[in-house]
Amino acid sequence: MPTEPLTPERILAATEEVLRRHGAAKATVVDVARALGVSHGSVYRHFRTKAELRGAVTKRWLDHTTELLAEVVAGSAAPAAKLRLWLATLFEAKRHKAGDDPELFATYTVLTTENGGVVDAHIAELIGQLTRILDEGVRQGEFESADLPVTARAVFEATAHFHDPVHAPEWSRPGAEQAFDAVVALVMRGLTSR
Amino acid sequence: MPTEPLTPERILAATEEVLRRHGAAKATVVDVARALGVSHGSVYRHFRTKAELRGAVTKRWLDHTTELLAEVVAGSAAPAAKLRLWLATLFEAKRHKAGDDPELFATYTVLTTENGGVVDAHIAELIGQLTRILDEGVRQGEFESADLPVTARAVFEATAHFHDPVHAPEWSRPGAEQAFDAVVALVMRGLTSR
Repeated sequence: MPTEPLTPERILAATEEVLRRHGAAKATVVDVARALGVSHGSVYRHFRTKAELRGAVTKRWLDHTTELLAEVVAGSAAPAAKLRLWLATLFEAKRHKAGDDPELFATYTVLTTENGGVVDAHIAELIGQLTRILDEGVRQGEFESADLPVTARAVFEATAHFHDPVHAPEWSRPGAEQAFDAVVALVMRGLTSR
Repeated sequence: MPTEPLTPERILAATEEVLRRHGAAKATVVDVARALGVSHGSVYRHFRTKAELRGAVTKRWLDHTTELLAEVVAGSAAPAAKLRLWLATLFEAKRHKAGDDPELFATYTVLTTENGGVVDAHIAELIGQLTRILDEGVRQGEFESADLPVTARAVFEATAHFHDPVHAPEWSRPGAEQAFDAVVALVMRGLTSR
Protein backbone atom coordinates (compact mmCIF):
# COMPACT_ATOMS: atom_id res chain seq x y z
CA MET A 1 0.00 0.00 0.00
CA PRO A 2 1.55 3.32 -1.01
CA THR A 3 2.03 5.68 1.91
CA GLU A 4 -0.14 8.83 1.86
CA PRO A 5 2.00 11.97 2.15
CA LEU A 6 2.03 13.39 5.68
CA THR A 7 0.24 16.76 5.31
CA PRO A 8 -0.55 19.27 8.07
CA GLU A 9 -4.26 18.53 7.51
CA ARG A 10 -3.73 14.78 8.12
CA ILE A 11 -1.79 15.55 11.31
CA LEU A 12 -4.52 17.92 12.53
CA ALA A 13 -7.30 15.40 11.78
CA ALA A 14 -5.35 12.73 13.70
CA THR A 15 -4.75 15.20 16.55
CA GLU A 16 -8.48 15.83 16.85
CA GLU A 17 -9.08 12.07 16.95
CA VAL A 18 -6.46 11.68 19.71
CA LEU A 19 -8.00 14.59 21.66
CA ARG A 20 -11.42 12.97 21.33
CA ARG A 21 -10.07 9.69 22.73
CA HIS A 22 -7.70 10.94 25.45
CA GLY A 23 -8.91 14.46 26.35
CA ALA A 24 -6.87 17.68 26.41
CA ALA A 25 -4.79 16.78 29.48
CA LYS A 26 -3.51 13.37 28.33
CA ALA A 27 -3.14 13.72 24.53
CA THR A 28 0.53 13.66 23.46
CA VAL A 29 2.44 14.12 20.22
CA VAL A 30 3.54 10.47 20.52
CA ASP A 31 -0.15 9.43 20.46
CA VAL A 32 -0.67 11.50 17.31
CA ALA A 33 2.39 9.99 15.61
CA ARG A 34 1.28 6.47 16.58
CA ALA A 35 -2.24 7.09 15.16
CA LEU A 36 -0.61 8.12 11.85
CA GLY A 37 1.96 5.30 11.85
CA VAL A 38 4.86 7.78 11.70
CA SER A 39 7.64 8.84 14.09
CA HIS A 40 7.03 11.81 16.37
CA GLY A 41 9.94 13.48 14.56
CA SER A 42 7.82 13.50 11.40
CA VAL A 43 5.04 15.35 13.24
CA TYR A 44 7.56 17.87 14.63
CA ARG A 45 8.73 18.63 11.06
CA HIS A 46 5.28 20.21 10.48
CA PHE A 47 4.55 21.58 13.98
CA ARG A 48 7.69 22.54 15.85
CA THR A 49 6.23 22.19 19.34
CA LYS A 50 3.30 20.53 21.06
CA ALA A 51 1.95 24.03 21.82
CA GLU A 52 2.08 24.92 18.11
CA LEU A 53 0.17 21.74 17.24
CA ARG A 54 -2.47 22.45 19.88
CA GLY A 55 -2.83 26.04 18.63
CA ALA A 56 -3.23 24.82 15.03
CA VAL A 57 -5.86 22.21 15.89
CA THR A 58 -7.78 24.87 17.86
CA LYS A 59 -7.65 27.24 14.88
CA ARG A 60 -8.92 24.44 12.58
CA TRP A 61 -11.87 23.81 14.91
CA LEU A 62 -12.79 27.51 15.02
CA ASP A 63 -12.25 27.91 11.26
CA HIS A 64 -15.04 25.41 10.52
CA THR A 65 -17.51 27.94 11.97
CA THR A 66 -15.85 30.92 10.27
CA GLU A 67 -16.16 29.21 6.86
CA LEU A 68 -19.83 28.38 7.40
CA LEU A 69 -20.49 32.03 8.28
CA ALA A 70 -18.42 33.33 5.36
CA GLU A 71 -20.89 31.58 3.03
CA VAL A 72 -23.74 33.52 4.66
CA VAL A 73 -21.83 36.80 4.23
CA ALA A 74 -21.18 36.01 0.54
CA GLY A 75 -24.88 35.18 -0.04
CA SER A 76 -27.38 37.45 -1.77
CA ALA A 77 -29.93 37.89 1.05
CA ALA A 78 -30.97 41.43 2.03
CA PRO A 79 -28.85 42.78 4.92
CA ALA A 80 -31.45 42.33 7.71
CA ALA A 81 -32.25 38.77 6.61
CA LYS A 82 -28.52 38.07 6.18
CA LEU A 83 -27.71 39.29 9.69
CA ARG A 84 -30.48 37.17 11.19
CA LEU A 85 -29.25 34.14 9.23
CA TRP A 86 -25.63 34.80 10.29
CA LEU A 87 -26.61 34.90 13.99
CA ALA A 88 -28.83 31.81 13.64
CA THR A 89 -26.07 29.90 11.81
CA LEU A 90 -23.56 30.79 14.52
CA PHE A 91 -25.91 29.70 17.34
CA GLU A 92 -26.79 26.49 15.48
CA ALA A 93 -23.13 25.64 14.77
CA LYS A 94 -22.09 26.21 18.39
CA ARG A 95 -25.07 24.33 19.76
CA HIS A 96 -24.28 21.39 17.49
CA LYS A 97 -20.65 21.32 18.52
CA ALA A 98 -21.65 21.41 22.20
CA GLY A 99 -24.54 18.96 21.95
CA ASP A 100 -23.34 16.36 19.44
CA ASP A 101 -20.01 15.62 21.06
CA PRO A 102 -19.88 17.20 24.55
CA GLU A 103 -16.52 15.61 25.45
CA LEU A 104 -14.77 16.99 22.37
CA PHE A 105 -16.44 20.35 23.02
CA ALA A 106 -15.11 20.34 26.61
CA THR A 107 -11.67 19.42 25.26
CA TYR A 108 -11.70 22.35 22.83
CA THR A 109 -12.91 24.64 25.62
CA VAL A 110 -9.71 23.75 27.49
CA LEU A 111 -7.67 24.35 24.33
CA THR A 112 -9.24 27.77 23.72
CA THR A 113 -8.21 28.91 27.21
CA GLU A 114 -4.61 27.90 26.36
CA ASN A 115 -4.72 29.65 22.97
CA GLY A 116 -6.04 33.15 23.71
CA GLY A 117 -4.35 34.62 20.63
CA VAL A 118 -6.02 32.11 18.29
CA VAL A 119 -9.41 32.84 19.87
CA ASP A 120 -8.93 36.63 19.69
CA ALA A 121 -8.07 36.35 15.97
CA HIS A 122 -11.19 34.19 15.44
CA ILE A 123 -13.41 36.75 17.20
CA ALA A 124 -11.85 39.59 15.18
CA GLU A 125 -12.63 37.65 11.99
CA LEU A 126 -16.27 37.12 13.00
CA ILE A 127 -16.67 40.79 13.94
CA GLY A 128 -15.14 41.63 10.53
CA GLN A 129 -17.87 39.54 8.87
CA LEU A 130 -20.54 41.33 10.91
CA THR A 131 -19.02 44.69 9.93
CA ARG A 132 -19.42 43.76 6.24
CA ILE A 133 -23.10 42.84 6.72
CA LEU A 134 -23.78 46.07 8.62
CA ASP A 135 -21.96 48.06 5.94
CA GLU A 136 -24.22 46.55 3.25
CA GLY A 137 -27.23 47.40 5.42
CA VAL A 138 -26.15 51.02 5.91
CA ARG A 139 -25.46 51.44 2.16
CA GLN A 140 -28.90 50.05 1.33
CA GLY A 141 -30.63 52.22 3.95
CA GLU A 142 -31.78 49.29 6.12
CA PHE A 143 -29.42 49.94 9.05
CA GLU A 144 -28.02 52.96 10.88
CA SER A 145 -24.65 53.01 12.64
CA ALA A 146 -22.35 55.86 13.64
CA ASP A 147 -19.31 53.55 13.81
CA LEU A 148 -19.54 50.20 12.00
CA PRO A 149 -16.81 48.21 13.82
CA VAL A 150 -18.06 49.43 17.23
CA THR A 151 -21.64 48.49 16.35
CA ALA A 152 -20.50 45.12 14.95
CA ARG A 153 -18.71 44.33 18.23
CA ALA A 154 -21.83 45.42 20.15
CA VAL A 155 -23.99 43.03 18.07
CA PHE A 156 -21.49 40.23 18.72
CA GLU A 157 -21.40 40.87 22.47
CA ALA A 158 -25.16 41.45 22.80
CA THR A 159 -25.67 37.94 21.35
CA ALA A 160 -22.85 36.30 23.38
CA HIS A 161 -25.49 34.33 25.29
CA PHE A 162 -26.00 32.31 22.10
CA HIS A 163 -22.46 31.72 20.91
CA ASP A 164 -19.91 32.13 23.70
CA PRO A 165 -19.01 28.62 24.97
CA VAL A 166 -19.21 29.89 28.58
CA HIS A 167 -23.00 29.90 28.04
CA ALA A 168 -23.15 26.36 26.54
CA PRO A 169 -24.98 24.86 29.56
CA GLU A 170 -27.91 27.21 28.83
CA TRP A 171 -28.29 26.25 25.14
CA SER A 172 -30.18 23.03 25.78
CA ARG A 173 -32.66 24.56 28.25
CA PRO A 174 -36.33 24.84 27.29
CA GLY A 175 -37.03 28.28 25.84
CA ALA A 176 -33.49 28.82 24.50
CA GLU A 177 -34.85 29.25 20.96
CA GLN A 178 -37.45 31.86 22.04
CA ALA A 179 -34.80 33.66 24.12
CA PHE A 180 -32.57 33.79 21.02
CA ASP A 181 -35.44 35.18 18.91
CA ALA A 182 -36.19 37.87 21.52
CA VAL A 183 -32.55 39.04 21.76
CA VAL A 184 -32.15 39.04 17.96
CA ALA A 185 -35.41 41.01 17.56
CA LEU A 186 -34.17 43.60 20.08
CA VAL A 187 -30.76 43.89 18.37
CA MET A 188 -32.31 44.11 14.87
CA ARG A 189 -34.65 46.84 16.08
CA GLY A 190 -31.64 48.69 17.51
CA LEU A 191 -29.93 48.61 14.10
CA THR A 192 -32.89 49.46 11.88
CA SER A 193 -32.79 52.92 10.32
CA ARG A 194 -35.71 55.18 11.11
CA MET B 1 -19.28 40.78 78.29
CA PRO B 2 -22.93 40.00 77.55
CA THR B 3 -23.37 37.49 74.76
CA GLU B 4 -24.93 38.85 71.56
CA PRO B 5 -27.95 36.77 70.51
CA LEU B 6 -27.15 34.27 67.76
CA THR B 7 -29.14 35.59 64.78
CA PRO B 8 -29.24 34.13 61.23
CA GLU B 9 -27.53 37.33 60.02
CA ARG B 10 -24.61 36.86 62.48
CA ILE B 11 -24.24 33.25 61.33
CA LEU B 12 -24.29 34.27 57.66
CA ALA B 13 -21.72 37.06 58.22
CA ALA B 14 -19.45 34.56 60.02
CA THR B 15 -20.00 32.02 57.22
CA GLU B 16 -18.85 34.55 54.65
CA GLU B 17 -15.75 35.25 56.74
CA VAL B 18 -15.00 31.50 56.98
CA LEU B 19 -15.52 31.12 53.21
CA ARG B 20 -13.15 34.03 52.62
CA ARG B 21 -10.47 32.36 54.76
CA HIS B 22 -10.89 28.71 53.79
CA GLY B 23 -12.54 28.70 50.34
CA ALA B 24 -15.72 26.89 49.28
CA ALA B 25 -14.21 23.39 49.36
CA LYS B 26 -12.79 23.47 52.90
CA ALA B 27 -15.24 25.67 54.86
CA THR B 28 -17.21 23.64 57.45
CA VAL B 29 -20.04 24.32 59.89
CA VAL B 30 -17.60 23.61 62.73
CA ASP B 31 -15.39 26.49 61.46
CA VAL B 32 -18.44 28.79 61.46
CA ALA B 33 -19.42 27.75 65.01
CA ARG B 34 -15.82 28.23 66.22
CA ALA B 35 -15.68 31.74 64.67
CA LEU B 36 -18.86 32.63 66.60
CA GLY B 37 -17.77 30.93 69.83
CA VAL B 38 -20.83 28.66 69.85
CA SER B 39 -21.44 24.93 69.39
CA HIS B 40 -22.17 23.63 65.88
CA GLY B 41 -25.56 22.50 67.29
CA SER B 42 -26.45 26.19 67.80
CA VAL B 43 -25.72 26.87 64.15
CA TYR B 44 -27.84 23.88 63.08
CA ARG B 45 -30.79 25.27 65.08
CA HIS B 46 -30.94 28.11 62.50
CA PHE B 47 -29.79 26.25 59.38
CA ARG B 48 -30.70 22.58 59.44
CA THR B 49 -28.00 21.39 57.05
CA LYS B 50 -24.69 22.59 55.67
CA ALA B 51 -26.39 22.80 52.23
CA GLU B 52 -29.09 25.07 53.66
CA LEU B 53 -26.43 27.35 55.21
CA ARG B 54 -24.52 27.51 51.92
CA GLY B 55 -27.72 28.31 50.02
CA ALA B 56 -28.59 31.08 52.49
CA VAL B 57 -25.15 32.70 52.35
CA THR B 58 -25.32 32.61 48.52
CA LYS B 59 -28.73 34.28 48.61
CA ARG B 60 -27.38 36.97 50.98
CA TRP B 61 -24.51 37.68 48.58
CA LEU B 62 -26.86 38.00 45.59
CA ASP B 63 -29.39 40.04 47.60
CA HIS B 64 -26.82 42.81 48.13
CA THR B 65 -26.96 43.50 44.38
CA THR B 66 -30.75 43.13 44.18
CA GLU B 67 -31.19 45.76 46.96
CA LEU B 68 -28.84 48.20 45.25
CA LEU B 69 -30.83 47.83 42.03
CA ALA B 70 -34.19 48.09 43.81
CA GLU B 71 -33.16 51.62 44.86
CA VAL B 72 -32.61 52.51 41.20
CA VAL B 73 -36.04 51.08 40.28
CA ALA B 74 -37.70 53.10 43.09
CA GLY B 75 -35.95 56.30 41.96
CA SER B 76 -37.61 59.11 40.05
CA ALA B 77 -35.42 59.15 36.90
CA ALA B 78 -37.13 58.98 33.50
CA PRO B 79 -37.42 55.38 32.22
CA ALA B 80 -34.58 55.53 29.65
CA ALA B 81 -32.18 57.14 32.15
CA LYS B 82 -33.33 54.69 34.84
CA LEU B 83 -32.70 51.68 32.61
CA ARG B 84 -29.22 52.94 31.73
CA LEU B 85 -28.47 53.56 35.43
CA TRP B 86 -29.81 50.11 36.38
CA LEU B 87 -27.52 48.39 33.84
CA ALA B 88 -24.52 50.53 34.86
CA THR B 89 -25.16 49.83 38.57
CA LEU B 90 -25.35 46.09 37.90
CA PHE B 91 -22.12 46.08 35.86
CA GLU B 92 -20.36 48.21 38.48
CA ALA B 93 -21.54 46.02 41.39
CA LYS B 94 -20.44 42.81 39.66
CA ARG B 95 -17.13 44.29 38.57
CA HIS B 96 -16.45 45.44 42.13
CA LYS B 97 -17.26 42.05 43.59
CA ALA B 98 -14.97 40.37 41.05
CA GLY B 99 -12.14 42.89 41.24
CA ASP B 100 -12.01 43.88 44.92
CA ASP B 101 -11.89 40.38 46.36
CA PRO B 102 -11.26 37.87 43.55
CA GLU B 103 -10.90 34.90 45.93
CA LEU B 104 -14.26 35.50 47.59
CA PHE B 105 -15.78 36.03 44.12
CA ALA B 106 -14.37 32.67 42.98
CA THR B 107 -15.76 31.07 46.14
CA TYR B 108 -19.22 32.47 45.47
CA THR B 109 -18.97 31.35 41.84
CA VAL B 110 -18.56 27.78 43.16
CA LEU B 111 -21.50 28.30 45.54
CA THR B 112 -23.77 29.59 42.74
CA THR B 113 -23.15 26.42 40.70
CA GLU B 114 -24.26 24.38 43.75
CA ASN B 115 -27.34 26.55 44.32
CA GLY B 116 -29.04 26.76 40.93
CA GLY B 117 -32.45 27.40 42.47
CA VAL B 118 -31.18 30.40 44.46
CA VAL B 119 -29.56 31.84 41.33
CA ASP B 120 -32.67 31.29 39.19
CA ALA B 121 -34.80 33.12 41.79
CA HIS B 122 -32.26 35.98 41.81
CA ILE B 123 -32.34 36.26 38.01
CA ALA B 124 -36.17 36.19 38.04
CA GLU B 125 -36.12 39.04 40.58
CA LEU B 126 -33.76 41.13 38.43
CA ILE B 127 -35.85 40.51 35.31
CA GLY B 128 -38.89 41.54 37.37
CA GLN B 129 -37.16 44.85 38.17
CA LEU B 130 -36.36 45.34 34.48
CA THR B 131 -39.99 44.59 33.59
CA ARG B 132 -41.12 47.39 35.94
CA ILE B 133 -38.73 49.90 34.32
CA LEU B 134 -39.88 48.88 30.83
CA ASP B 135 -43.51 49.11 31.90
CA GLU B 136 -42.94 52.69 33.10
CA GLY B 137 -41.24 53.46 29.78
CA VAL B 138 -44.10 52.04 27.72
CA ARG B 139 -46.70 53.94 29.78
CA GLN B 140 -44.75 57.17 29.30
CA GLY B 141 -44.30 56.56 25.56
CA GLU B 142 -40.50 56.24 25.72
CA PHE B 143 -40.33 52.49 25.01
CA GLU B 144 -42.15 50.00 22.82
CA SER B 145 -42.56 46.31 23.67
CA ALA B 146 -45.05 43.70 22.48
CA ASP B 147 -44.43 41.51 25.55
CA LEU B 148 -42.80 43.14 28.59
CA PRO B 149 -41.39 40.06 30.42
CA VAL B 150 -40.00 38.66 27.14
CA THR B 151 -38.37 42.00 26.30
CA ALA B 152 -37.03 42.34 29.87
CA ARG B 153 -35.39 38.92 29.62
CA ALA B 154 -33.95 39.89 26.22
CA VAL B 155 -32.43 43.08 27.74
CA PHE B 156 -30.96 41.00 30.58
CA GLU B 157 -29.48 38.40 28.22
CA ALA B 158 -28.27 40.96 25.65
CA THR B 159 -26.21 42.58 28.45
CA ALA B 160 -24.99 39.28 29.98
CA HIS B 161 -21.48 40.15 28.84
CA PHE B 162 -21.47 42.78 31.58
CA HIS B 163 -23.06 40.97 34.52
CA ASP B 164 -22.86 37.20 34.13
CA PRO B 165 -19.89 35.97 36.26
CA VAL B 166 -18.84 33.64 33.40
CA HIS B 167 -17.66 36.83 31.67
CA ALA B 168 -15.75 38.21 34.70
CA PRO B 169 -12.29 37.71 33.11
CA GLU B 170 -13.30 40.20 30.36
CA TRP B 171 -14.41 42.99 32.75
CA SER B 172 -10.92 44.24 33.52
CA ARG B 173 -9.78 44.34 29.88
CA PRO B 174 -9.07 47.69 28.25
CA GLY B 175 -12.13 48.90 26.36
CA ALA B 176 -14.66 47.09 28.60
CA GLU B 177 -16.34 50.41 29.46
CA GLN B 178 -16.70 51.42 25.79
CA ALA B 179 -17.97 47.94 24.92
CA PHE B 180 -20.58 48.30 27.66
CA ASP B 181 -21.65 51.72 26.32
CA ALA B 182 -21.97 50.34 22.77
CA VAL B 183 -24.14 47.37 23.82
CA VAL B 184 -26.32 49.57 26.03
CA ALA B 185 -26.75 52.13 23.21
CA LEU B 186 -27.81 49.31 20.83
CA VAL B 187 -30.28 47.88 23.37
CA MET B 188 -31.71 51.32 24.24
CA ARG B 189 -32.21 52.05 20.55
CA GLY B 190 -33.99 48.69 20.20
CA LEU B 191 -36.43 49.68 22.96
CA THR B 192 -37.11 53.28 21.96
CA SER B 193 -40.57 53.93 20.56
CA ARG B 194 -40.72 55.39 17.08
